[in-house]
Amino acid sequence: MHGEPKIAIIGSGSWATALAKILLNNVEHINWYFRNTDNIDQFKRFGHNPNYLRGVEFDINRITFFDNLDQIIEESDLLVLAIPSAFLHDSLKEVTVDMSHKFIVSAVKGIVPHGNQIVGSYLHETFKVPYDRVGVIAGPCHAEEVALERLSYLTIASPDIKRAADFANLLECEYIRAHVSDDIFGTEYASVLKNIVAIASGIVHGLRYGDNFQAVLVANAIQEIKRFVDKVHPISRDIKSSAYLGDLLVTTYSQFSRNRTFGAMIGKGYTTRTAQIEMHMVAEGYYATKSIHEINEEFKVKMPICEAVYSILYENVPPSVGIRQLTEKLR
Amino acid sequence: MHGEPKIAIIGSGSWATALAKILLNNVEHINWYFRNTDNIDQFKRFGHNPNYLRGVEFDINRITFFDNLDQIIEESDLLVLAIPSAFLHDSLKEVTVDMSHKFIVSAVKGIVPHGNQIVGSYLHETFKVPYDRVGVIAGPCHAEEVALERLSYLTIASPDIKRAADFANLLECEYIRAHVSDDIFGTEYASVLKNIVAIASGIVHGLRYGDNFQAVLVANAIQEIKRFVDKVHPISRDIKSSAYLGDLLVTTYSQFSRNRTFGAMIGKGYTTRTAQIEMHMVAEGYYATKSIHEINEEFKVKMPICEAVYSILYENVPPSVGIRQLTEKLR
Repeated sequence: MHGEPKIAIIGSGSWATALAKILLNNVEHINWYFRNTDNIDQFKRFGHNPNYLRGVEFDINRITFFDNLDQIIEESDLLVLAIPSAFLHDSLKEVTVDMSHKFIVSAVKGIVPHGNQIVGSYLHETFKVPYDRVGVIAGPCHAEEVALERLSYLTIASPDIKRAADFANLLECEYIRAHVSDDIFGTEYASVLKNIVAIASGIVHGLRYGDNFQAVLVANAIQEIKRFVDKVHPISRDIKSSAYLGDLLVTTYSQFSRNRTFGAMIGKGYTTRTAQIEMHMVAEGYYATKSIHEINEEFKVKMPICEAVYSILYENVPPSVGIRQLTEKLR
Repeated sequence: MHGEPKIAIIGSGSWATALAKILLNNVEHINWYFRNTDNIDQFKRFGHNPNYLRGVEFDINRITFFDNLDQIIEESDLLVLAIPSAFLHDSLKEVTVDMSHKFIVSAVKGIVPHGNQIVGSYLHETFKVPYDRVGVIAGPCHAEEVALERLSYLTIASPDIKRAADFANLLECEYIRAHVSDDIFGTEYASVLKNIVAIASGIVHGLRYGDNFQAVLVANAIQEIKRFVDKVHPISRDIKSSAYLGDLLVTTYSQFSRNRTFGAMIGKGYTTRTAQIEMHMVAEGYYATKSIHEINEEFKVKMPICEAVYSILYENVPPSVGIRQLTEKLR
């Protein structure tokens, strides 16, 4: 590839917007896909994303907007996918061009419900993308803090460490440190599982458990995450790294977590339906809870926290009862 | 020992008070040492500790108060030490009776500055207490939440697991789960190190770093703690357990942490002297920072977080500079 790679951001949410901001520190130009043409018009008029991180101003001369996926894919070498996992399959099924020779980086953080796959496996099986052309961006990184240019650390995982490192270099800037990893499976699963833990954390908060118990919950959670990823993809990894433990911490302890907020409403007695309506959105962990439950029917890993959340969200177990049972399984 | 053991609480702070409350769920009677006779008088008059956790009411008929250490030691089988580590040696040096046949449980969480020893080693060397008669109580457990009867998990460590289990049974109640461990060294060192991390956490908060960086700091901190305790006392342990990681989390993320508050003042530009005066107290981590620095001169473990705090508190490195250098060492 000649000069800087042609990068496409696919998605228009807060994380997509944060990544666009970061990348434009190091590349002159990006392509950016919005499903909704009105949003593109507004973005061009006001110089910021009309719906997310509106305080972040962009030089629109350095962005080419697309509302057609085939076109942006053909015009780009490196695709950053930042569409919520629940909608990923519906969005990508309109793609007719070949993506298998691109480097595709998932910023999705979720399970694709279509087939209960992590994004890497989904891309591999549905679009024939070789695994060494798949990457994953992991936090701990709330988009809102990127907007404020607060120092954040990212991990870029790919079986092709050279590609991961090249992309990491495009992210490094005054407020971003980017490191590499070869663990796309563990990184993606951990980022999915942390959303379920965040729901659990919210539920216990809603039930008025305190900080002492939160700490026990999170310490047990990282052990549960380790058991699961070590079983599903047994390679050497340090689960205490920022990409796993750090990502769990920022999600369970931070004010910005939608999953924790959703859990807190459940803990306070809202139904899942009412909580979702009140929040005007669906917490990713809600779907992840069901997907992980189904995936674990094969692996049979001991996962008391995820199972407690599943029983509360999908089996009508009262939160107080589900959590009381959970407390006997933690230590 | 016939019937229930005669238990002595030695210390009058919030953690001593919380432990007295917990124990009185399961034992009929406790002995309790206060250095200050006026406080005993007030306790008897009002039915609560006049200075700490004043909302916790006690039946004073079930407590025998002592202001003489020799007497309470002679009257008791099991001693719970809950005196700040900075004052432990000055307090205990008046003891003239033999303590070596008691079971002595440290609730101290700190290094005894006299000799830079953890409490277990200090008791062993100064009072000839065999290690299998030493125990340690580890959190994650803020005393304030015990007062509110919020579910909390304790770990009781002792080389004599049977003694640890017997004591754990005396703590179990509706709001306390108690588990056992054989790791008095790792448990005590981890509980000391977490106070230094809490200061670091406060400093970066005071400097306006965000949640993303806090998560990276804490993920790196548990790795640093593991490196240190594995070097100082190499036995098999899971650092992700509640007694280590959970204790770190509750201290670094909780509103009740004095060490974090102290660090935040340092990060905002207070001198250590001014911060201590404003807080009307000395954060334990302040002393621990120096002790661990000195202990690590022998072990030479890579400890970038503890060293950054040391440089800021004891070498006049400006917080912004010390933390900026630290950010390059984390990942």
